[in-house]
Amino acid sequence: MEYTVTFSPGDKRIAIKEGATLLEAAQKAGAHINNTCGGAGTCGKCKVIVKKGRVRAMPSFLLTNEEIKKDYVLACQARVLGDVELEIPKESMLGDIQILTATMPKRDIFKYGKIEQETVAAKHLKEPLLREPLVKKVYLKLPYPTPQDNLSDLERLLREIKSKQNIAHLEIRLSVTRTLASIIREKNWEITVTLAKRDNFYEIIQIEPGDTSNHNYALAIDVGTTTVVAQLIDLSRSEIIDTVGDYNRQTAFGEDVISRIIYACEQNGLEDLCRVVVKNINDLIKEISERIDFDQSDITSLLFSGNTTMAHLLFKLEPCHIRRDPYIPVATFYPNVTAKEIDIEINPEAPIYCMPGVSSYVGGDITAGVLSCGMNEKEEISMLIDIGTNGEIALGNKEWLVCCSASAGPAFEGCGIKFGMRATKGAIQRIKITSEYGIEYSAIGDLKPSGICGSGLIDCLAEMLKNRVINRSGKIQENARNLRLRKTNEGMEFILVYKNETGIDSDITISDSDIANLIRSKAAVYAGASILIRHMGLTFDNIDKLYVAGGFGNFLDVKKSIFIGLLPDLPIDKFEFVGNSSLSGARQSLLSIEDFFNAKAIAQKMTYIELSIEPSFMDEYAGALFLPHTHAELFPSVINSLAKNV
Amino acid sequence: MEYTVTFSPGDKRIAIKEGATLLEAAQKAGAHINNTCGGAGTCGKCKVIVKKGRVRAMPSFLLTNEEIKKDYVLACQARVLGDVELEIPKESMLGDIQILTATMPKRDIFKYGKIEQETVAAKHLKEPLLREPLVKKVYLKLPYPTPQDNLSDLERLLREIKSKQNIAHLEIRLSVTRTLASIIREKNWEITVTLAKRDNFYEIIQIEPGDTSNHNYALAIDVGTTTVVAQLIDLSRSEIIDTVGDYNRQTAFGEDVISRIIYACEQNGLEDLCRVVVKNINDLIKEISERIDFDQSDITSLLFSGNTTMAHLLFKLEPCHIRRDPYIPVATFYPNVTAKEIDIEINPEAPIYCMPGVSSYVGGDITAGVLSCGMNEKEEISMLIDIGTNGEIALGNKEWLVCCSASAGPAFEGCGIKFGMRATKGAIQRIKITSEYGIEYSAIGDLKPSGICGSGLIDCLAEMLKNRVINRSGKIQENARNLRLRKTNEGMEFILVYKNETGIDSDITISDSDIANLIRSKAAVYAGASILIRHMGLTFDNIDKLYVAGGFGNFLDVKKSIFIGLLPDLPIDKFEFVGNSSLSGARQSLLSIEDFFNAKAIAQKMTYIELSIEPSFMDEYAGALFLPHTHAELFPSVINSLAKNV
Repeated sequence: MEYTVTFSPGDKRIAIKEGATLLEAAQKAGAHINNTCGGAGTCGKCKVIVKKGRVRAMPSFLLTNEEIKKDYVLACQARVLGDVELEIPKESMLGDIQILTATMPKRDIFKYGKIEQETVAAKHLKEPLLREPLVKKVYLKLPYPTPQDNLSDLERLLREIKSKQNIAHLEIRLSVTRTLASIIREKNWEITVTLAKRDNFYEIIQIEPGDTSNHNYALAIDVGTTTVVAQLIDLSRSEIIDTVGDYNRQTAFGEDVISRIIYACEQNGLEDLCRVVVKNINDLIKEISERIDFDQSDITSLLFSGNTTMAHLLFKLEPCHIRRDPYIPVATFYPNVTAKEIDIEINPEAPIYCMPGVSSYVGGDITAGVLSCGMNEKEEISMLIDIGTNGEIALGNKEWLVCCSASAGPAFEGCGIKFGMRATKGAIQRIKITSEYGIEYSAIGDLKPSGICGSGLIDCLAEMLKNRVINRSGKIQENARNLRLRKTNEGMEFILVYKNETGIDSDITISDSDIANLIRSKAAVYAGASILIRHMGLTFDNIDKLYVAGGFGNFLDVKKSIFIGLLPDLPIDKFEFVGNSSLSGARQSLLSIEDFFNAKAIAQKMTYIELSIEPSFMDEYAGALFLPHTHAELFPSVINSLAKNV
Repeated sequence: MEYTVTFSPGDKRIAIKEGATLLEAAQKAGAHINNTCGGAGTCGKCKVIVKKGRVRAMPSFLLTNEEIKKDYVLACQARVLGDVELEIPKESMLGDIQILTATMPKRDIFKYGKIEQETVAAKHLKEPLLREPLVKKVYLKLPYPTPQDNLSDLERLLREIKSKQNIAHLEIRLSVTRTLASIIREKNWEITVTLAKRDNFYEIIQIEPGDTSNHNYALAIDVGTTTVVAQLIDLSRSEIIDTVGDYNRQTAFGEDVISRIIYACEQNGLEDLCRVVVKNINDLIKEISERIDFDQSDITSLLFSGNTTMAHLLFKLEPCHIRRDPYIPVATFYPNVTAKEIDIEINPEAPIYCMPGVSSYVGGDITAGVLSCGMNEKEEISMLIDIGTNGEIALGNKEWLVCCSASAGPAFEGCGIKFGMRATKGAIQRIKITSEYGIEYSAIGDLKPSGICGSGLIDCLAEMLKNRVINRSGKIQENARNLRLRKTNEGMEFILVYKNETGIDSDITISDSDIANLIRSKAAVYAGASILIRHMGLTFDNIDKLYVAGGFGNFLDVKKSIFIGLLPDLPIDKFEFVGNSSLSGARQSLLSIEDFFNAKAIAQKMTYIELSIEPSFMDEYAGALFLPHTHAELFPSVINSLAKNV
């Protein structure tokens, strides 16, 4: 028996079998509903309101009595019994997001309140023009054949390329060979060949009549768990043409990599996940091509940068063992792939390169980051902290590199926090406690706030600590002198915004349990960083430069991050924000064979430290579950500041 | 307007547009009609009888008055005007053919009357077992992953192969990588990988669970202009499993390479030609698989050997410039191709290797021949003469190699000869003049003769010369003492078989013009060989070994071939028949990487001499237009024999 399920707003309809979950219906209908746990019924993010019709809903402690009265159900725990009309409440919707589409110019990040999307002011890149891109176009005038020089068309072409380009090993595909005889004769033996670099040979991927060497574009793609960014580069002029971004639409199938792996492996969802991310990428390419007049087939290379799971989902590789002990991915270095093999709508013969990764939980995005920061070329020791759903950390210099991945969890992305949300419109991103009652805040897009995002949560924690609303354990102090505190059945909570000022139907609050979640996240990142430091027999003081990257990092207040013990207590000028370093590294590699091979060397060289088997990790982690840290001496500036504040 | 055309025997029907030629209708209907000229109306081979219905036929001097009275038309010169019923007379049909499917055992060829199809008596090949095949299967037991050894599945596999097989560069396709995680775990980390050799790397084309290393087959394919032969080889035991042959079905589109190139390039027929040869090959594979119990996907490599045009048609490369000055093919070395790309029904990822050629008219079949004879490894000078539609000749030793292609034309394959036919059932293959009236002959299959094939024509010429029925110019002597001579409007002819003894409705005769055609063919081959010899400053006496190859050569009488001046007058023990050396060379290469690379070296090293621009060619050719030659001193044994015969 099939029934019709209708979703509003948007009025999306779908016919679906009796017994299907509402989340399945939403995914099929293309109606986005948040969910972190991949349909396990544990995250409570997929709330929908049943306006009409019959569903069978499993009881859930994640719904309040008030919500149950208003016919809220968890979409993943409710099944269709008849025609149904559903409303997706604001808090379950994907909002607009600020996607970090470009490398941040230095220091801009420190300007309080800067939230507008970054644009690249100077279009010309700093990469030297003489470097050779991964895919290049070469114009050739071939000598005419004669009875004395009667080499075949292909041998003639190869001879010319080998002698003019100093290339020893060349391959060509049958499909390209088939076009050779006509094209070579079309413009009097003048042609342009497109050469793609492979590990130990070049491949001729295209032959065009005449000189087309000034039409050669490459696409850098950063696929994060939450967002997808595409950047078009004109290879002939080493120029960024355009940068566009979008959500990762896989979010509809689960907000973190684990829930997507579960969907892929236990619900046979690999096809779905691959299809949507390919569509994501194709839509971005289309968006660029609609804005700028160029031919999609002139994009002759694409470089994909993302975590290991994202790469597996794009290439349709089984991600199942990524989440099973001992956490083995199918690949960290990827095979040669062409656009037509995975339905990417650029030149069908274009190579799809992929940033090599280190392990299941340190992917090509981190390799790209290390490359982009140049950590691997410096005498001095640097650290890179990429804060996203996982907190990946790399440490090293030109001699050695180590890395780890801290299961920070998605708290700083708003997940697991009652009023947490991503840095989208309506999210509180800055907050300041001004008095016993007073609060100043700013929400993205100058809208009435509907929740609080990562940077707001850091501010919140720092302000509450500074104003002694919480103690160093993160516990809200019942006896604190603040009028915004109240007691509920579940414990104490602090009211950030009263209902009448919000864009939703309730107060926006932060509770003891929210704070505990945040502290666990920051503790995991800090502990990871400490383990790496200790593993190498160093202290944080040995670090010359600390790069902070990630979509989240774009709007991070370093001082407050130190204040809560997320980042180590180092002089502010040792920090550098590198923004979307995954994208920068990808672009750099497209423009320079040498850099792509450097990235491979980085991935090969970098030693992965599995935190879960490090004996000292639990101690480090437990120590960091304090604000800023159990060992106050690690954060002298914070302790000083707290002391002054008495 | 569409009409129905019916062909008998076979009762094949096709609906076709008004105005289409009967030949087009036959091709569409799958009814084979001989034709040499590709539909130009010049060969006269495509005669059909109009039994019913209306056609518009162009007049042709190739039809006799008697034929015209019996409603014969040339199928290529007659167009459909209504529903038509046609009969294909015997002489226009493709008969069964004796296809040379294996290397001839030495000397057998000299046994007069040996016409049965060759079988390989000793199944074990002589190639050393230790040589490494182009595609090998390797069984591996991978070490289990641990947190300390946490390489990805792919990196783990590559590490193992590289260390155990001493291979530096390995590639893998996405499609194969997708199967990796499951297969590797299916039988406890025991797997068999199939590795294909490429120019400067190996490619992993398949991964199977457990140990399957004893299921690995290769297919050697010889595609000649007329026949296609397939040989299945068990790589794990270096054994020939089966050899099967068939016509090249492209013959329906023209009997020689030039007419097929015209069909491909001027009638948009490349798709057709490619499709039918692929079907040819697939049908042979099916035939083997029906006779022997094995899985087609266990064929993990195919090596194609054929002339340059055949290779172009298989790979769908434009063959058009092969026949245009300065005769440039698209390729003589072919790109990496996989079975699925060209619809060959073996393992879809199996590489399709192709014997490299030298030029438009010296193809991979000749390279294979040189390899198979081992000419390129000997101190002594050898010559290889491959007699087919073209006569290709190679000369040299381990220091140097030259080659040429003589436009012998298809006379020895029965084309351009009034009663000529291929070596199929009913063809006269041996003939002896026993008296002024008496003739002894044998026809293939012990049937009533319907024509005469190449070996019969050589016998015929030699016998007529010996018995002075013709003079040394090839002219039939009106005053010769033979009762089988008669005068017609077109000149003299010699009656080989009277109508009542034949399987057709007329006497089988040979005329002055037939003999002139044969002499032009043999002259071209001999002149080509002479040019090569002279070009290198040698004489025929410098030749240590003369290899004769080709489907035709299988049934060649060496003494009689010398007698008419087709082959040089050397001691009989200098000749060696190598049978289908194209197939032998292909098999050898499949079994040994070294030999395949030797073949590449041969093709690269061999200098092609274009006869049409050799100043002395016309003199050489004119000199050879005599029986056995203008310069009698070149054929002392023949002159002696003729003298004795007076």
